[in-house]
Amino acid sequence: MRGAVLYAPGDVRVEERPDPKIIDPTDAIVRLPVTCVCGSDLWDYRGINPVTGPAPIGHEYCGVVEEVGSEVRSVKPGQFVIGSFFSSDNTCPNCRAGYQTSCVNRAFVGGCQAEAIRVPLADGSLVATPGQPADEHLPSLLTLSDVMGTGWFAAVAADVRPGMTVAVVGDGAVGLCGVLAAAQLGAERVIAMSRHAKRQRLATKFGATDIVTERGEEGVARVKELTNGIGADAVLECVGTSEAMHQAVRSARPGASVGFVGVPHGVALDGEELFYSHVRLHGGPAPVRRFLPDLIERVWNGQMDPGRVFDLDLPLDQADEGYRAMDERRAIKALLRP
Amino acid sequence: MRGAVLYAPGDVRVEERPDPKIIDPTDAIVRLPVTCVCGSDLWDYRGINPVTGPAPIGHEYCGVVEEVGSEVRSVKPGQFVIGSFFSSDNTCPNCRAGYQTSCVNRAFVGGCQAEAIRVPLADGSLVATPGQPADEHLPSLLTLSDVMGTGWFAAVAADVRPGMTVAVVGDGAVGLCGVLAAAQLGAERVIAMSRHAKRQRLATKFGATDIVTERGEEGVARVKELTNGIGADAVLECVGTSEAMHQAVRSARPGASVGFVGVPHGVALDGEELFYSHVRLHGGPAPVRRFLPDLIERVWNGQMDPGRVFDLDLPLDQADEGYRAMDERRAIKALLRP
Repeated sequence: MRGAVLYAPGDVRVEERPDPKIIDPTDAIVRLPVTCVCGSDLWDYRGINPVTGPAPIGHEYCGVVEEVGSEVRSVKPGQFVIGSFFSSDNTCPNCRAGYQTSCVNRAFVGGCQAEAIRVPLADGSLVATPGQPADEHLPSLLTLSDVMGTGWFAAVAADVRPGMTVAVVGDGAVGLCGVLAAAQLGAERVIAMSRHAKRQRLATKFGATDIVTERGEEGVARVKELTNGIGADAVLECVGTSEAMHQAVRSARPGASVGFVGVPHGVALDGEELFYSHVRLHGGPAPVRRFLPDLIERVWNGQMDPGRVFDLDLPLDQADEGYRAMDERRAIKALLRP
Repeated sequence: MRGAVLYAPGDVRVEERPDPKIIDPTDAIVRLPVTCVCGSDLWDYRGINPVTGPAPIGHEYCGVVEEVGSEVRSVKPGQFVIGSFFSSDNTCPNCRAGYQTSCVNRAFVGGCQAEAIRVPLADGSLVATPGQPADEHLPSLLTLSDVMGTGWFAAVAADVRPGMTVAVVGDGAVGLCGVLAAAQLGAERVIAMSRHAKRQRLATKFGATDIVTERGEEGVARVKELTNGIGADAVLECVGTSEAMHQAVRSARPGASVGFVGVPHGVALDGEELFYSHVRLHGGPAPVRRFLPDLIERVWNGQMDPGRVFDLDLPLDQADEGYRAMDERRAIKALLRP
């Protein structure tokens, strides 16, 4: 089959790779009509995470079950399924607590920019849709695997509730999905921090009521201005840099929660500042599996259309252009069709 | 009147100070039958916080209202009252959100190791007891002003709920009050981290079910052993050092909250570690005012007796011995009688 391989920073190639096979009796093989490039793939693509050799890449997927191992019970060949970038048994204490990305038996589901993948722990990881989706729903369903699931977790971790004023730091695909999640969870006011016209427009479509173009301390001051000097009731941090995290903490009112889902790179938090801020922090790799049934239903019912984050649609063979366009911020998110 | 003054690290003197007077019409003057030394006073006493000149010290108080300003409505002379170490208007957005120690009009109530004090914003800060307390209840009522209020906030910030397994890092008076708070809030199992026999005994009286004497990584390993390898459902950090904070975060299971109330000194949190831990962090200066009505009722009804943290009872004039005994860990907490 064809699949994308990262050879070195800036060097993604689509080439022949071995077809996935059932290894453990709990595995499933899933054939992917669509896959995509994640903002976190750029950490590798840019060489910020070390690249030690050619490695299959991509971790977002949805598609049709082709084959299952002998112990798989909850999904069967022919079903359309979505899973998280970490497989999980969904029975261990961490899964039962809703933190499937901390499953004691978790495994990273990598190499998803490809025609097909092997998903370990299929019963605990995959959720089937109510039926075969129409083609136009594929992009939205695909986002549930990570980007929308992650934006959703940011909003849940930030404890967004109806009537709140919510600030979202980061206008990448995750930040935009965070805006959508906050709106879906009933936020009265959603402040999107963005200085890119195209992303501002999508944020507004997703439910943003205010756009703040300032960053850093100026961005904080602007959010305070919009909130009677007190700060937002909830803040979503969707970048992972030190600047973004500090901006998020300082934009939150005392007692507010900051949900942080940007994979931190060089972020150090000063205990004393956090103490006197009275801000609550919660984040991590989104436990997408927890949210999948609800999110599938919302897409299926037409309540939300997160697939609009894809503004570039390419054949898998042009994955390199997808990476370049996202790296140069020409595209918000690139869909790849195997 | 007599009052304690910190002249330099290690140099506390009780001397004549001016009687407090009403300055603003929202003030109250409170005469103190008891006051005490706080673990956080030791940061000054030890010179870890810079001491720039003679300064009245102490911030824990309860007593009888002697005089009120012309605008005070909710308390009157003769009532027995308790207040927090920060006065608050109890009407601003931060107060209404339950974070009175972030009140936009807050003022630190200092110089409380004295015969009497001025409390600003009396209406928003002071809570009266149902009647005049018996002498034997004074120590427990005094603890509500800070140490028990702070231990309580640690447990609330750690989201302690019935049936949980809770770990408490720190066996100072706040940590011990945290043990008591966790037990009062229905924790099924309370793991106290302590290597001091006397403190272990008091922790057990307060509701600790397990004692862990190990610290740092060994302490973490021991908590994991006691919790099926997963970690505690809630952790209270009651010290404020880097070691204690890291021990707390690592002792918590994914999704658990760490309530941190030790004033951080040199604590830096690594964003990446926090991210992958899935732990929730919340803390700060305890909004004692939020909890006072409930805590007064619990003491008044005999549901809890936090005054047992006082194991040294001295006349105010011997404040210096109270500090020395706490500094040398000969005493858990020193009560001072003006």
